[in-house]
Amino acid sequence: MRTLTVELGARSYPIHIGSGLLHHADLYRPHLRGTQVLIVSNTTVAPLYLEAVRHALDGYQVREVILPDGESYKTLEIWNQIFDALLKERFARDCTLIALGGGVIGDMTGFAAACYQRGVAFIQVPTTLLAQVDSSVGGKTGINHPAGKNMIGAFHQPRAVIADTDTLSTLPQRELSAGLAEVLKYGFIRDAAFLDWLECHMTGLMSRDPDALAHAIWRSCELKAQIVAEDEFESGSRALLNFGHTFGHAIETGVGYGEWLHGEAVGAGMCLAATLSAHLGWLTDAELERARHLIASASLPTARPAHLSPERMRELMAVDKKVLAGQLRLVLLKQLGEAVVTSEFAQDALLHSLG
Amino acid sequence: MRTLTVELGARSYPIHIGSGLLHHADLYRPHLRGTQVLIVSNTTVAPLYLEAVRHALDGYQVREVILPDGESYKTLEIWNQIFDALLKERFARDCTLIALGGGVIGDMTGFAAACYQRGVAFIQVPTTLLAQVDSSVGGKTGINHPAGKNMIGAFHQPRAVIADTDTLSTLPQRELSAGLAEVLKYGFIRDAAFLDWLECHMTGLMSRDPDALAHAIWRSCELKAQIVAEDEFESGSRALLNFGHTFGHAIETGVGYGEWLHGEAVGAGMCLAATLSAHLGWLTDAELERARHLIASASLPTARPAHLSPERMRELMAVDKKVLAGQLRLVLLKQLGEAVVTSEFAQDALLHSLG
Repeated sequence: MRTLTVELGARSYPIHIGSGLLHHADLYRPHLRGTQVLIVSNTTVAPLYLEAVRHALDGYQVREVILPDGESYKTLEIWNQIFDALLKERFARDCTLIALGGGVIGDMTGFAAACYQRGVAFIQVPTTLLAQVDSSVGGKTGINHPAGKNMIGAFHQPRAVIADTDTLSTLPQRELSAGLAEVLKYGFIRDAAFLDWLECHMTGLMSRDPDALAHAIWRSCELKAQIVAEDEFESGSRALLNFGHTFGHAIETGVGYGEWLHGEAVGAGMCLAATLSAHLGWLTDAELERARHLIASASLPTARPAHLSPERMRELMAVDKKVLAGQLRLVLLKQLGEAVVTSEFAQDALLHSLG
Repeated sequence: MRTLTVELGARSYPIHIGSGLLHHADLYRPHLRGTQVLIVSNTTVAPLYLEAVRHALDGYQVREVILPDGESYKTLEIWNQIFDALLKERFARDCTLIALGGGVIGDMTGFAAACYQRGVAFIQVPTTLLAQVDSSVGGKTGINHPAGKNMIGAFHQPRAVIADTDTLSTLPQRELSAGLAEVLKYGFIRDAAFLDWLECHMTGLMSRDPDALAHAIWRSCELKAQIVAEDEFESGSRALLNFGHTFGHAIETGVGYGEWLHGEAVGAGMCLAATLSAHLGWLTDAELERARHLIASASLPTARPAHLSPERMRELMAVDKKVLAGQLRLVLLKQLGEAVVTSEFAQDALLHSLG
């Protein structure tokens, strides 16, 4: 097991990464407040791992709520089921929520923890690669609105992140790829050497080599923890983490939540952002080609869905959270390993990169 | 106009109290971020005051959403209408929400501002006495769940509070009384001299003497601002502001939201809390009688609803947010003008005071 810390003063917390961690009572207990614990999971993950977590929490008043699985259920109505469960059991302000699942479960559980009685404790137990390297770390929580992804949410940091790499053995290949999209993102925006490493080890990662996966998760969390510590509430550098996401969110909203996995949309989104960066003369054609190849080597899509027109994409991107004073701002690449937030691009250039 | 400040470091904000303030563009403008403003109001208040606020915001992109009026609409579904409006207009993260109405509008608007794109600015323009003296100040926002009042919410401070005392002229008498419940609360928990003053001026307050009302609002806001500055997130003294509220919330939940006004339930709740305080030997019979008389002189109820049994009341109180480690904690009076949070009372004593 390796542990790193997200440094946020009084709200600092550990990320534990390793094999078999789900079973370790000692990893949960220091972070539980009272005796009441609600595990939030979904219909796919609960049959596999719920018992192990329940067992580790022996002696506590443990209840669970099992939500349907998938991004299309990240809605206000499904979110409310968490409150129904908390109130049915009369859970008090000193209760703790545990998110056992992927990014959707983590985001909804964290947002419920942020709002239940105006804020209770929660622990992230991510069981997908995407959640382990990205969504479980940093305190962004939320749900979707039909008109936009993650439009309703809060910043609410977990008490701990427990990333058990064994859970990746049951992950469908498509979700493994989706997780690798976020891993690649860290390389693209901040760490050219990590990008080199990923290029060399993509075959191992795709075949689930445990050492390769453990290193990729570790380095991704380390980079994310650094960025979150620099800028918890996204007034500056944290926005770089949205590389590929404004394009990606438009794809997810345009095709309907759940059609494309979030990581798949981010994969295509990173290609589109790299294309625009190249169009602006920031990336060479060779760098663009290298980026595309890397994304394709993780079995991720590299283009927008054919039925979503460039005009419709641009329209959907206009409601993004990164719009300020009517100006769309995008994360683009100055080079591989260095990203910037900018609104210095012509609408024509944007349309062209979407074409 | 008089102005006081809620001292919360970077989140400090002014409370302006006076006549005709609704029309003053200068009071809003320093607190607007971008150019987009959404006014949230209800079907009762909007016809009276919306135009004045719109006029003061001339030059901004102003939109509005008008919600149904009443505590029974403080629900997840109605709350979502605010997001529908924000997203329909593609409002960005630098938009500002304005809550124009009573406590329900203020709580729902503030909670929407807390969650829209993980947090945007908002301004409170309270138009009821209750909202002017209590709910618009301090950053508690939220909505109800069928199983409990204000169970879903956030701490999110407004950028400014603009309390136009002229709006009280259109307030139904029943709502004036409801507001006086919270005014009396400040005297009971913290300021015996203010309680004396209220005793002398209750007739003037009930007949809406402008000077008496202005002083009562001023002193109430001053006391609330002090307590909030001491303890923004209710880990200590802020809990004293819940005097009468645990009993009151049980009444509101028990009879169904909207049957009793919040202030009416708090009036009866304060009587029940005083009764328990007397039962514990903390208040003399004469003090209890004085408290009851004061509450009755504001035309507020002084007993629980007849059809809500003591056992049912106690059951409803058990889900209160002030329950910790299974222990119900109540705000009780050591004397008139001094409150404490305590769980040192027997269940028998509680049942007796409810009887």
